[in-house]
Amino acid sequence: MKVLIVHAHPEPKSFSSALKDTAIEVFREGGHDVQVSDLYAMGFNPVASVDDFGNRANPDYCVYALEQRHGVSNGTISPDIQRELDKLMQCDLLVLNFPVFWFSTPAILKGWLDRVLVSGTVYGGTRFYDRGGLRGKRAIVSVTLGGQAHMFGNDGVHGPIEGMLRHLLQGTLGYTGLDVLAPFVGWHVPYVSNEERLALLKAWRQRLSSLEEETPLAFPSLDDFDENMYPKSS
Amino acid sequence: MKVLIVHAHPEPKSFSSALKDTAIEVFREGGHDVQVSDLYAMGFNPVASVDDFGNRANPDYCVYALEQRHGVSNGTISPDIQRELDKLMQCDLLVLNFPVFWFSTPAILKGWLDRVLVSGTVYGGTRFYDRGGLRGKRAIVSVTLGGQAHMFGNDGVHGPIEGMLRHLLQGTLGYTGLDVLAPFVGWHVPYVSNEERLALLKAWRQRLSSLEEETPLAFPSLDDFDENMYPKSS
Repeated sequence: MKVLIVHAHPEPKSFSSALKDTAIEVFREGGHDVQVSDLYAMGFNPVASVDDFGNRANPDYCVYALEQRHGVSNGTISPDIQRELDKLMQCDLLVLNFPVFWFSTPAILKGWLDRVLVSGTVYGGTRFYDRGGLRGKRAIVSVTLGGQAHMFGNDGVHGPIEGMLRHLLQGTLGYTGLDVLAPFVGWHVPYVSNEERLALLKAWRQRLSSLEEETPLAFPSLDDFDENMYPKSS
Repeated sequence: MKVLIVHAHPEPKSFSSALKDTAIEVFREGGHDVQVSDLYAMGFNPVASVDDFGNRANPDYCVYALEQRHGVSNGTISPDIQRELDKLMQCDLLVLNFPVFWFSTPAILKGWLDRVLVSGTVYGGTRFYDRGGLRGKRAIVSVTLGGQAHMFGNDGVHGPIEGMLRHLLQGTLGYTGLDVLAPFVGWHVPYVSNEERLALLKAWRQRLSSLEEETPLAFPSLDDFDENMYPKSS
């Protein structure tokens, strides 16, 4: 199995980095091929802009998605995007590993999504959800956060974490056709004991070694919608 | 009323930019004071990092939120953050205006949220939702997207837009204590006629002139939770 781990934490000694290192270790022990994009270490540029295109489909007016298609077809998309896109298309499993910033990814990782999940290759027209360009691959999100698990229960103050992360789990990863596993969440990380952190690493190690057996989250199927995206039953 | 418009679109001639210009015009006509942070034009740096702090509470290990507190208290936070924070704290209404990228903000705007919504001033400990640091101010999100309105109905393929934007509307803006109004959504913008675009601008203009009369979205109240964030009724 080929694994791509995309990691985004500003502190190399963070617990999030330990989750990343654990994942590398477990996958390599399992004989898998592991690529790592450590976005802070790479100084990854997260800003989607006209500078991403060596030449332009329309030099006068930038529709970012159309320029992505043009850039990929013509091999003129920015080399830093092309490198990440190649890693993504080659992988069987994508791991996004990050601390939750405002119930989402840090901006540097959001920019990886904005720039690397290119229109045409990854999605486009009615090629999304179970018809997306990344179907057949799996994805898992591993996060750390300050809140406690009970704050994310059904009667918790924030509601379920899957609701807060819907834009990412369903709207981004699921949208591209990936089979998305339940997120791995390190609750309350800045406040817990070293013992609890070690227990979290152990739990992560256990999940990693049996990801292939997990059932992905359920997302909409385009089989249930007509070509204009109206529900077929109505 | 003091208004802060934070705008993030890579194409200055975009329809999203027209929404921004319309907002500036309507607010100025109404005698309001308008500040604009046009993040692409400013070349805003979206990457939260150790470089954001002139000196450090802990030079050996960066907990970003703790360094934010230290930086704001000591006046040593990066000047580009301090400038935006000053605009934010002075405003009565915050407008976030952007194209939806992956059911969220473009990375450059995510980075504005990551870096400017500083711990201590904006939130912290149990100061969130109706006890957040920005309570008393209002916010509205105005977005453009490619999808059509019926794709975001209750039986639509993506479900309600408020669900996809929950991390932003509730988890970010609501979390800081802002009174968040229903988003203004320009559906299907890349595909609609010029007439339809003009109708959208007219609808936006109408909403802008009566925002004060609108009822904000409902979010949790900390009155319903004890000091450990367990529901009081349980």
